[in-house]
Amino acid sequence: MPISHSRTVPEDAQGARSLVEALRVNGDRLWQTHLEIAKIGAIAGGGSNRLALTDDDRQARDLFVDWCREAGCTVRIDQMGNIFARRAGSDEHLPAVIAGSHLDTQPTGGIFDGVYGVLAALEVIRALNDAGVSTRHPIEAIVWSNEEGVRFSPAVIGSGVWAGAHDLADAHSRTDVDGVTFGQALADIGYLGDVACAPFPIRAAFEAHIEQGPILENAENTIGVVTAVQGIRWFDIILNGRSCHAGSTPMEVRRDPVMALATILDAVYRLAAEHAPNARVTVGRLNAEPGAYNTVPQRVVASLDLRHPDEATLEQLSAKVAEIVTACCASHDVDGQLRDELGHNPVAFDPISIEAVQAAADQLGYKSMRMVSGAAHDTMHVAQHAPAAMIFVPCEGGVSHHPDEMATAEDLEAGCNVLLHAMLRFAEPI
Amino acid sequence: MPISHSRTVPEDAQGARSLVEALRVNGDRLWQTHLEIAKIGAIAGGGSNRLALTDDDRQARDLFVDWCREAGCTVRIDQMGNIFARRAGSDEHLPAVIAGSHLDTQPTGGIFDGVYGVLAALEVIRALNDAGVSTRHPIEAIVWSNEEGVRFSPAVIGSGVWAGAHDLADAHSRTDVDGVTFGQALADIGYLGDVACAPFPIRAAFEAHIEQGPILENAENTIGVVTAVQGIRWFDIILNGRSCHAGSTPMEVRRDPVMALATILDAVYRLAAEHAPNARVTVGRLNAEPGAYNTVPQRVVASLDLRHPDEATLEQLSAKVAEIVTACCASHDVDGQLRDELGHNPVAFDPISIEAVQAAADQLGYKSMRMVSGAAHDTMHVAQHAPAAMIFVPCEGGVSHHPDEMATAEDLEAGCNVLLHAMLRFAEPI
Repeated sequence: MPISHSRTVPEDAQGARSLVEALRVNGDRLWQTHLEIAKIGAIAGGGSNRLALTDDDRQARDLFVDWCREAGCTVRIDQMGNIFARRAGSDEHLPAVIAGSHLDTQPTGGIFDGVYGVLAALEVIRALNDAGVSTRHPIEAIVWSNEEGVRFSPAVIGSGVWAGAHDLADAHSRTDVDGVTFGQALADIGYLGDVACAPFPIRAAFEAHIEQGPILENAENTIGVVTAVQGIRWFDIILNGRSCHAGSTPMEVRRDPVMALATILDAVYRLAAEHAPNARVTVGRLNAEPGAYNTVPQRVVASLDLRHPDEATLEQLSAKVAEIVTACCASHDVDGQLRDELGHNPVAFDPISIEAVQAAADQLGYKSMRMVSGAAHDTMHVAQHAPAAMIFVPCEGGVSHHPDEMATAEDLEAGCNVLLHAMLRFAEPI
Repeated sequence: MPISHSRTVPEDAQGARSLVEALRVNGDRLWQTHLEIAKIGAIAGGGSNRLALTDDDRQARDLFVDWCREAGCTVRIDQMGNIFARRAGSDEHLPAVIAGSHLDTQPTGGIFDGVYGVLAALEVIRALNDAGVSTRHPIEAIVWSNEEGVRFSPAVIGSGVWAGAHDLADAHSRTDVDGVTFGQALADIGYLGDVACAPFPIRAAFEAHIEQGPILENAENTIGVVTAVQGIRWFDIILNGRSCHAGSTPMEVRRDPVMALATILDAVYRLAAEHAPNARVTVGRLNAEPGAYNTVPQRVVASLDLRHPDEATLEQLSAKVAEIVTACCASHDVDGQLRDELGHNPVAFDPISIEAVQAAADQLGYKSMRMVSGAAHDTMHVAQHAPAAMIFVPCEGGVSHHPDEMATAEDLEAGCNVLLHAMLRFAEPI
């Protein structure tokens, strides 16, 4: 049942402004929606396992769509299954003010990552409905498909295709471990839409998200005003040595890829320290073949995740890593390769959108700080075609991608209030 | 068809001594037996895949037993499937002079590792038969079960149970990946014997083996006079940190087990260098969990194979490794554990047996050097209950446990001649 937005605006403009300034979201309702979504794909420990385009993902999408329709929105689905729930503006020719994130999770994920950004956008619409505030610009709450990239690689592909960073046909052809294509899985859950997956006019775009790191908590801040997303380079360090007997081969004649790796890691971590605090280096995957106690490995592969918010510095760091691999391999007589696996450049958000977030936080009296997102987010792609910024709220101990992921109802409410007022600045309440 | 050993010894003792001194093995025949055994379980690249107690292992054992019976030996099988082929002495109450090794291989093994020691012992018996030389002491050619430890863990267990280093019932209960027990597998191939698996009187024990390292080749020596087997300690370095997001977690708050591992490896390799050339350190297995590009691992496990020929030094090195793990984990706020997986103390061989090998090499005019075995061998266990020593011959590039494993017919013949004359020194030709 659509709710009317036709409440009469006070004739006194000052009164209207005061009303809008006093507008707040409903924190209890926001919290309850998280608990409702968390029932779908719930796992032990209070987390979520809701992989993209599974039946659990469908259920969560259906619930979101139902809520949006109840809130008076029209809903359209595009060719990537991205969901756009639109609260009409008084002038439908004006570009929309949008906010959103994703509903899919890691296999042992938390209940806030992504979900918060979707439900905060819905709560903004509900709060406007409650107060009977209309806007000149339409407002949209968005669910981007497959942000996590667990069932289908790569990650952040719903917004990626939308932004033209990925090809639609290629995305549809991606398969899961059972050989099911992305396109088929979309059709199977009823979310293969016919709306073109492409940018449309947008006045401003926002995404609220838990920080997934400890910076806000440690600084006792409530709001992170996100100015940029770090650039990422993913590499495989592939080292081919010569397998030999661990007992009978003197150390000095070995071509041991683990010995080469040890010196590479030492140098790479020192490189990160030299570029502290912005450079981040992570080795998440390690594999040695053949993998026997008493055999020097023939081959070692280590992943390298390298991040920096400045594009030129990221390029310099990447080049330096390549030099390190070359030098360390030469000194251990090992064949080394640094294979580029994936990456994206740093994304600087729109100064005016950032300022809108900052102003909203200040106006609402929340303690805030400027920060750079270490993680990739859908709004990184959206920002290629719209003025954009993000809002972070603290999460306990910085833990994310884990059932222990936790945020307080108060912080979620605060972030949602900032989202509301940042959006209102562009949506033009009438 | 047994061959008679009854050839009349010349009455002139000097003549008999000359005859024995002139005795040589048949190098062509020795080489051909390698090629015959290599047909069983042959793999691409000229190697062997003949895992312990498989049907291929049975076929190789059957062929060996046939050859031994044709050479006039009596054959007995013990409770671990160890095969003892005995050439009678003129006084059967005297302790035997034994030689042997193993017929099982790695899954992608070579055709010499182990096989050479078995076939060299057979060739010694055949050469004595050809020359009609009898001995006062019995001579035995032995096949030890499951030296490689691939299908059934642990390795070197046939000789290990014989020596009392392992329990028979426990060994019989070990299972392969299909749940088949060692005892069942022995029965299945017809090699569950009823002879007690226990030491018997031995005058001297030898094992000829390819070096499996590059030392002899690099020094252009034909014979390695093996004085000892290095002690081994196997450890798992288990590091538990805290999994977190690779992008959003500042370097300085991480508890990254890979960062701890990098400093541990650096320190452990430096420790090995400080104790060069005898200390050997190998990290053959590496695993990081959960194993994602963009997640700092929760847990890393690395294997550590530590070797040294001196027991006290090996203990010191083990203690030092434990200190390194503790210190590096403390500085990275990671929980570290150094789990003792397996080990054996260094084994010093019998000086008189060593001298017999050296004297044989000198007498035969082969260039030789004293050396320590970096690998474990069955004779390491035999040496607990018998005077023992080993004979190494070069293998190309030190390569072993690989289809490329290669030794020359000339070197194999030389090592077998050394084995013959070392054994004769104790077997007392008549």
